[in-house]
Amino acid sequence: MSDNEALVLLEHDAYGIKGAVKLTLNRPQAFNALSESMLDAMEHALQDIGESDARVVVIAGAGRAFCAGHDLKEMRAQPALDYYRDLFARCSRMMLTVQRIPQPVIARVHGIATAAGCQLVAMCDLAVASDDARFAVSGVNLGLFCATPSVPLSRNVSRKAAFEMLVTGDFIDAHTARERGLVNRVAPLAELDDAVSALAASIASKPREAVAAGKRLFYRQLETGIEGAYALASETMACNMMDEATLEGTQAFIEKRAPRW
Amino acid sequence: MSDNEALVLLEHDAYGIKGAVKLTLNRPQAFNALSESMLDAMEHALQDIGESDARVVVIAGAGRAFCAGHDLKEMRAQPALDYYRDLFARCSRMMLTVQRIPQPVIARVHGIATAAGCQLVAMCDLAVASDDARFAVSGVNLGLFCATPSVPLSRNVSRKAAFEMLVTGDFIDAHTARERGLVNRVAPLAELDDAVSALAASIASKPREAVAAGKRLFYRQLETGIEGAYALASETMACNMMDEATLEGTQAFIEKRAPRW
Amino acid sequence: MSDNEALVLLEHDAYGIKGAVKLTLNRPQAFNALSESMLDAMEHALQDIGESDARVVVIAGAGRAFCAGHDLKEMRAQPALDYYRDLFARCSRMMLTVQRIPQPVIARVHGIATAAGCQLVAMCDLAVASDDARFAVSGVNLGLFCATPSVPLSRNVSRKAAFEMLVTGDFIDAHTARERGLVNRVAPLAELDDAVSALAASIASKPREAVAAGKRLFYRQLETGIEGAYALASETMACNMMDEATLEGTQAFIEKRAPRW
Repeated sequence: MSDNEALVLLEHDAYGIKGAVKLTLNRPQAFNALSESMLDAMEHALQDIGESDARVVVIAGAGRAFCAGHDLKEMRAQPALDYYRDLFARCSRMMLTVQRIPQPVIARVHGIATAAGCQLVAMCDLAVASDDARFAVSGVNLGLFCATPSVPLSRNVSRKAAFEMLVTGDFIDAHTARERGLVNRVAPLAELDDAVSALAASIASKPREAVAAGKRLFYRQLETGIEGAYALASETMACNMMDEATLEGTQAFIEKRAPRW
Repeated sequence: MSDNEALVLLEHDAYGIKGAVKLTLNRPQAFNALSESMLDAMEHALQDIGESDARVVVIAGAGRAFCAGHDLKEMRAQPALDYYRDLFARCSRMMLTVQRIPQPVIARVHGIATAAGCQLVAMCDLAVASDDARFAVSGVNLGLFCATPSVPLSRNVSRKAAFEMLVTGDFIDAHTARERGLVNRVAPLAELDDAVSALAASIASKPREAVAAGKRLFYRQLETGIEGAYALASETMACNMMDEATLEGTQAFIEKRAPRW
Repeated sequence: MSDNEALVLLEHDAYGIKGAVKLTLNRPQAFNALSESMLDAMEHALQDIGESDARVVVIAGAGRAFCAGHDLKEMRAQPALDYYRDLFARCSRMMLTVQRIPQPVIARVHGIATAAGCQLVAMCDLAVASDDARFAVSGVNLGLFCATPSVPLSRNVSRKAAFEMLVTGDFIDAHTARERGLVNRVAPLAELDDAVSALAASIASKPREAVAAGKRLFYRQLETGIEGAYALASETMACNMMDEATLEGTQAFIEKRAPRW
């Protein structure tokens, strides 16, 4: 547990925002590489946050980079198919947890986000990058096609743009990442935390239940045909409308006053 | 019926284009809010158009806005789960009708398009906006996540951009909407009708059967794997080729003359 | 076979890149129209390349255009439903072969790419266009909705942008095609081959097995829900990691030296 605490730093009410949790990957000397211990620490931290009353999560990296992907030294030391199967299954589980927890998760990206680091950006619900951030799925340069990163990358950016990154391993800059849909906002490094906290504050100010139900619905309906998607969404919205906060919110709107939440 | 006529204005051969139908939402004092009566009026009008020999449809809003979404006063007055279930099912049915009728449907957007109003823009096959138009899925500000609007929004714009709009409730302007894929064209308000009519005229000049079969195929193939999509599309195209208008159109092309349609 | 050789020119180690195959559509007087013979020649050439040790493929057009789509004169001469069914099935099979062969395929686009020519660009994994290239799915102008081209087009560009091209038949220019995701890179015509060869060289320098497994995985995972996609990708990546080239590539990375491939 003390190891986990060292690998992942948790800050509650981050940026002075009640309900905002900042999770910082803390292996700066290794560009926050996702070792087995790091994957476990992140998985546990995210699970705990998911069960807490937190409203929004920010994932950041300590030191000079967001995250450089898997820990290649650790990986290379155990050349066995079953070991790799287990490793990628664990990594995938952590990535899916980002999407499964009820809180919106914002990637705060600076420096580089490569391979599984770029994957983590793509899996987050939202991403804000400093204007000097760079993104690549560069495994192919070592002969390792970034297969698992391709899953969320190809669900964020257009098909040909994703394919190009995957077979060339080339970097794209922050503005290109924004144009293509991999990040939402770009800010100078000195203003990165302002941009992240503005987004986090906006989310934290919304009723928690509505946001949680909305996030769950958002990803479910994306994997369904449009008629099934409408059926899921109609049920979500009808239930959401019956929430106390929502009945108060709509009443306040009609009375042209602020809701009493 | 007289109520319906008042809520939805129908103009045939709109813009002087034979086969163009303009459907104007006509509750300007309520920013064309989608009350139960309005939903029914739209559903009936769209069904009638779908069965007519119309070639293209334009949906517009009377007054200062395109559409501000559901009628919150009416909604709030009946706080019962079954009522909301029925309401969102009716709204979803109307939205799906936009996609199911054989004619291409163009949203003519000015002012604001919010919540189910933004959803209506996203459901239309095409959209043209004035450069001062603004778009938001702002229900979350009242505690009501725009679940049903998220269905077509997330099928128009990239995942992170859609998620950001849904959890922040923030507006985007017309140029951003165009860059992200929510609208096709942007024009100054004074030239909005010219831009809409140019698009409508282009569509109305094409053989009706080819466009109708094409629209149906377009949405079906999107929900199928690529091999199944090709099977559907091959059959559609083979049948389309046997249309009299198409045999004449291809013959005219070969003879370098205009088709005699 | 001599006919096929005439219709499709094959150049091995193109651009001086070992493993790069350039396939040139060679009916310049007909804007490289996809006649039955051309479809067969392309299908056979692609199958042969797929089974060879080639590393990357470039598809180009001889003369003034990339490809103007089907051969309308040939098509119009046989107005029978079964003939058209067979024709579109053959064309679809060729298009799917582009995606099924293990090598990445780059479209080198100049002049026009219309109807099935635009479809071919969309089916390629990557595309580089000269800045005077133009793209359209213009069949609707003749009464023939570009149904089969809509399959890959709607998987490359956003829904409304694809629909607009399909119902108007209008051209878009190369820069618009790049912004929308239909092509990866745009260069002046005089520098088009430099841009294509730079991309081809990058791909040819990567281990062949990793790229082949990656391409196959990329398209499979796109047609699966995110959990199934992760399961496929994890297995692909674990197997890829056991490749000799990959074990050497990661070892070289750790030792900060070039891999000995």
